[in-house]
Amino acid sequence: MAKSPETEHPVKAFGWAARDTSGVFSPFKFSRRNTGEHDVQFKVLYCGVCHSDLHMVKNEWGFTQYPIVPGHEIVGVVTEVGSKVEKFKIGDKVGVGCLVGSCRQCDQCSNDLENYCPKQILTYSMPYVDGTITYGGYSDLMVADEHFVIRWPENLPLDIGAPLLCAGITTYSPLRYFGLDKPGMNVGVVGLGGLGHLGVKFAKAFGTKVTVISTSLSKKEEAIGKLGADEFLVSSDPEQMQAAAGTLDGIIDTVSAKHPLVPLLGLLKAHGKLIMVGAPEKPLELPVFPMIVGRKTIAGSAIGGLKETQEMIDFAAKHNILPDVEMIPIDYVNTAMERLLKSDVKYRFVIDVEKSLKAE
Amino acid sequence: MAKSPETEHPVKAFGWAARDTSGVFSPFKFSRRNTGEHDVQFKVLYCGVCHSDLHMVKNEWGFTQYPIVPGHEIVGVVTEVGSKVEKFKIGDKVGVGCLVGSCRQCDQCSNDLENYCPKQILTYSMPYVDGTITYGGYSDLMVADEHFVIRWPENLPLDIGAPLLCAGITTYSPLRYFGLDKPGMNVGVVGLGGLGHLGVKFAKAFGTKVTVISTSLSKKEEAIGKLGADEFLVSSDPEQMQAAAGTLDGIIDTVSAKHPLVPLLGLLKAHGKLIMVGAPEKPLELPVFPMIVGRKTIAGSAIGGLKETQEMIDFAAKHNILPDVEMIPIDYVNTAMERLLKSDVKYRFVIDVEKSLKAE
Repeated sequence: MAKSPETEHPVKAFGWAARDTSGVFSPFKFSRRNTGEHDVQFKVLYCGVCHSDLHMVKNEWGFTQYPIVPGHEIVGVVTEVGSKVEKFKIGDKVGVGCLVGSCRQCDQCSNDLENYCPKQILTYSMPYVDGTITYGGYSDLMVADEHFVIRWPENLPLDIGAPLLCAGITTYSPLRYFGLDKPGMNVGVVGLGGLGHLGVKFAKAFGTKVTVISTSLSKKEEAIGKLGADEFLVSSDPEQMQAAAGTLDGIIDTVSAKHPLVPLLGLLKAHGKLIMVGAPEKPLELPVFPMIVGRKTIAGSAIGGLKETQEMIDFAAKHNILPDVEMIPIDYVNTAMERLLKSDVKYRFVIDVEKSLKAE
Repeated sequence: MAKSPETEHPVKAFGWAARDTSGVFSPFKFSRRNTGEHDVQFKVLYCGVCHSDLHMVKNEWGFTQYPIVPGHEIVGVVTEVGSKVEKFKIGDKVGVGCLVGSCRQCDQCSNDLENYCPKQILTYSMPYVDGTITYGGYSDLMVADEHFVIRWPENLPLDIGAPLLCAGITTYSPLRYFGLDKPGMNVGVVGLGGLGHLGVKFAKAFGTKVTVISTSLSKKEEAIGKLGADEFLVSSDPEQMQAAAGTLDGIIDTVSAKHPLVPLLGLLKAHGKLIMVGAPEKPLELPVFPMIVGRKTIAGSAIGGLKETQEMIDFAAKHNILPDVEMIPIDYVNTAMERLLKSDVKYRFVIDVEKSLKAE
């Protein structure tokens, strides 16, 4: 008989888990492996709440393993290191994002693109190399191979910085890879949530002119006044959209609901790029003609590799890029998920694990 | 009252035109402008029949001006040059492709990308700068600004080479721009028609390994035996497609009918590119998830600029890349259109204008 989550490993751990597709969280006793030669064990202090967590606890992507302890924007302080760990020592501030494993051998891994390794291991709800299921950061303790652990810069706040580990890298990586990081470029950001608000901040830090495109005029003041965007377009206003036609070099589209692409393609200059980082469940409508006549690109992008994630964190520290967050205790997580579903958060919940998670 | 096509210009011309959305061709007397300072006048010898011609004569794209004389794969011999023409002299072999004008001032034009100039003037059925409608190569005489005239290499046959001017550049340009021209790369070509068969030949000439993807097994022998493709996949065979999953660096998709993208995206490696050069009238279904998890790209591409078209023609001459064509007389064009609609041609009709078009 397979061992229970509580006894399969020697190290006691405690967190909050969802047990079925209701997605309702409750306290959960489980266990972590002993710190292996290449492992870093750390006390979790803060963990961001990503929209993926919501999709996963309800099994909306179809591969959830219950019970599930989500959380892949995890920061904390090292409590133990394996004998062969080179980069970290006890007391170091560290972070873990969406990945805790990959094959380390394929073309993707060889090119620091573990995020595209076919054998990547997600931080939660996936089988680890030892056959046990991974548990994320809605918990008191983490252990991970040092290759997947990020060095946390001294001047970067641990608490509000946590969402950089997923929301940050998800927007930083495509801006870099698709060449939308040149000063003076015109970059659009669709959707002003956890991803979008960081997309605006990174794009501004790269020196681009940023246009926020949103369904709701109510976000204009926030986008321009608070986040520093240069322009704001209401996507449902044909006149505004027409006036801005052909002006953008690229767009980061963070929307994970079904939405029309034609208006967004229309905003692009010739050779412009529309990068999808939100993942609508259902297919979108792809009009081919406007892509052909302007040699336009639609592409996807998923988080980033470990080297690039470290680069992003260091860049954020240097340029003082910080998520706007609402700190919550762990026992607020069910309410937080309901509010997240309604986009009722500016812009990311972060669980104060240290203060609020007490093992019973 | 506006002058008639026959009298609006001083130079008599003769061709075949369609008069309405039936798309039926009949002989047509019209006129060409006097050879301007920068113009080249040439006697048309051969003209390819492009699938666009079929769309246009039936007004399927909604902007046809009747009567329409199609043809944008036009080759011939120079009969007169304007006083300021620098590149050509009487007797030179020349070609004209899809464009006869552009603004010559915008960013696109400044970067030799006249094909993406918002003010580009198509070779037929569009208002020229003098307000008259352009007429294409299903005719005895052409006149065009020398900037839009291609120098024809001595060793490149005029007759069977004609389709390079549209079908050739349409596949050559995206292979180059999207970096699918590196020896050893794996390149797919979807659809084996006028565009696809040239895509195979250019991709092979670049030193890539070419996989043809087709709905019909019947094209396998042709693709591998005659065109020199390395592999052949039947797109409706899930086992074949699964076995080839994740193997291609890029795909040139020449299909202009509605078709599923998921199987094609599945063939791409991570960071792979699916380039659409066919223009389905209706939107395709775009699945976002597979694009995100592999950072995959879908893009469009339209013909090429004049500089690149000259480069392509010179490359074709050097590497002996020639379309496979069926030569037809002009009075066969109505039948040719019917056969084209059924894809019943290997792979391009070329009208022998010189031999078959006689002014009445």
